[in-house]
Amino acid sequence: MGFASLTHAEREDFWNLWFSELVKGHVGMTYKVKKILYSGQSRFQRIDVLDTHEYGRMLVLYGSVMFTERDDFVYHEMMAHVSYYSHGGPSSALVIGGGDGLTARELLKHSSIRSVVVVDIDEMVVERCKEFFPESKAALDDPRVKVRFADGAEFVRKTDERFDIVLVDSSDPVPPSDVLFRREFFENCKRCLGPGGILIAQTESPFYNPDVIKEVYASLREIFRIVKPMVAWIPTYPSALWSFAFCSDERHPVEGFDRKAFLADKIATKYYNEEIHAAAFALPAFVRSLL
Amino acid sequence: MGFASLTHAEREDFWNLWFSELVKGHVGMTYKVKKILYSGQSRFQRIDVLDTHEYGRMLVLYGSVMFTERDDFVYHEMMAHVSYYSHGGPSSALVIGGGDGLTARELLKHSSIRSVVVVDIDEMVVERCKEFFPESKAALDDPRVKVRFADGAEFVRKTDERFDIVLVDSSDPVPPSDVLFRREFFENCKRCLGPGGILIAQTESPFYNPDVIKEVYASLREIFRIVKPMVAWIPTYPSALWSFAFCSDERHPVEGFDRKAFLADKIATKYYNEEIHAAAFALPAFVRSLL
Repeated sequence: MGFASLTHAEREDFWNLWFSELVKGHVGMTYKVKKILYSGQSRFQRIDVLDTHEYGRMLVLYGSVMFTERDDFVYHEMMAHVSYYSHGGPSSALVIGGGDGLTARELLKHSSIRSVVVVDIDEMVVERCKEFFPESKAALDDPRVKVRFADGAEFVRKTDERFDIVLVDSSDPVPPSDVLFRREFFENCKRCLGPGGILIAQTESPFYNPDVIKEVYASLREIFRIVKPMVAWIPTYPSALWSFAFCSDERHPVEGFDRKAFLADKIATKYYNEEIHAAAFALPAFVRSLL
Repeated sequence: MGFASLTHAEREDFWNLWFSELVKGHVGMTYKVKKILYSGQSRFQRIDVLDTHEYGRMLVLYGSVMFTERDDFVYHEMMAHVSYYSHGGPSSALVIGGGDGLTARELLKHSSIRSVVVVDIDEMVVERCKEFFPESKAALDDPRVKVRFADGAEFVRKTDERFDIVLVDSSDPVPPSDVLFRREFFENCKRCLGPGGILIAQTESPFYNPDVIKEVYASLREIFRIVKPMVAWIPTYPSALWSFAFCSDERHPVEGFDRKAFLADKIATKYYNEEIHAAAFALPAFVRSLL
């Protein structure tokens, strides 16, 4: 082959470094990696930041993709805006585990939001996100955002603060995040909600993790009067069909949706809009029968 | 390692044969393969049938996953039932390219459907599907189904038959299916529709193929009065977000949805239901701005 005549990009393409995230060791996504920007080990987990061809930069914790620059908008928009436009005027939010600051980034699009408390157990995750992801840095450095390095389960058990919105932006149910899927944790989350408060928790893939999900929803239904599962498409998460639990004692996500406010606000979104807000609560038949 | 003490299943697990379907050579799904059941070459394309761990048996044409036993329900239910329940009583259907018989399988769940014509260019695909997929065989052998081996584009140009529903169940826009994305083809599909007829065509991933999609929708909008994009989640298709074009001169998929009929029919579905029917037409912001 005439190597001499190849462009720089063509030569770069010979560098076949692949990162794969597998489900049960049998199936998964595989990404061609341009460069490993960081690999390290915190007190809690392995942390990697990869630069990939199709998805840009990617945060990987304990071998699982947390977010990528190209598709993070889906997960973070859905957590932030579905809760925001179901509440009717929230001013404070608590994000458990969102050390990447991207759920905060979405919340900050709303001028009524005056305070976002981000509780992450792993300071190193926050540091690496600020170093490698400009949008994380911008959000985490915003004066309305306070980052606390603490165990989320302990934080909600002890705090006296009350929030209009609590978002459980956890990683998968393996340590250190396993406690964020337990009944006691959700009870304490509820304790932190102000009047009319809303909790949204990520609840894994209904396609690959039906058992986790059943258990979590059984707990939530004992705690909250209104528990509505919603789904969103996230191409870099296992199976790409992701579920979230919308929980409240007062607010219904579809009947209480403030469509007018969304249309008036004109916030920039790439996934969420006034149709998706309701459509996310329409569950595929197999998900409905599971929950 | 104590090989002697391993179970048969554990030993099988050492057989690391992986099949990957990549997008632009940079990202994709990868599947651990138990066994290659068939590999061959027809006049038109390479054909493989794989037995995989998580998704069961899988038909692969020219290296792209066409369907798997575990998730085929999404694609085929959406094509068949969205068109069926928007029509108000169809009795005949034409399926272009559905040689696997699975769109036909869904249509056959409706007793009002008296005739399904399946036109596939590749007889070998039909033979292999009948050999390896019992549900394909059952559908394709049903007396209400007629299989014609022909070029779909030529078939719709020449036939005198008229259909209530035309479903374009094509593979990707590479030969031999590239002709099934052209304006002339869609014009001829329209010619084959009876009064109140509905066309649904698969239109690729809006995430990975924005250019193809823009062009196809521009053509369709010049041909049909009502053109509504819908999306569905298909975990084994690139990006897992798949789009379809609902086209008709008379029927609107949401306003004209016969919800009562669906609830009365009680057909068995795993994805489609009375909520998904409408929710599929709620487009994520980036898809809406594309189309």
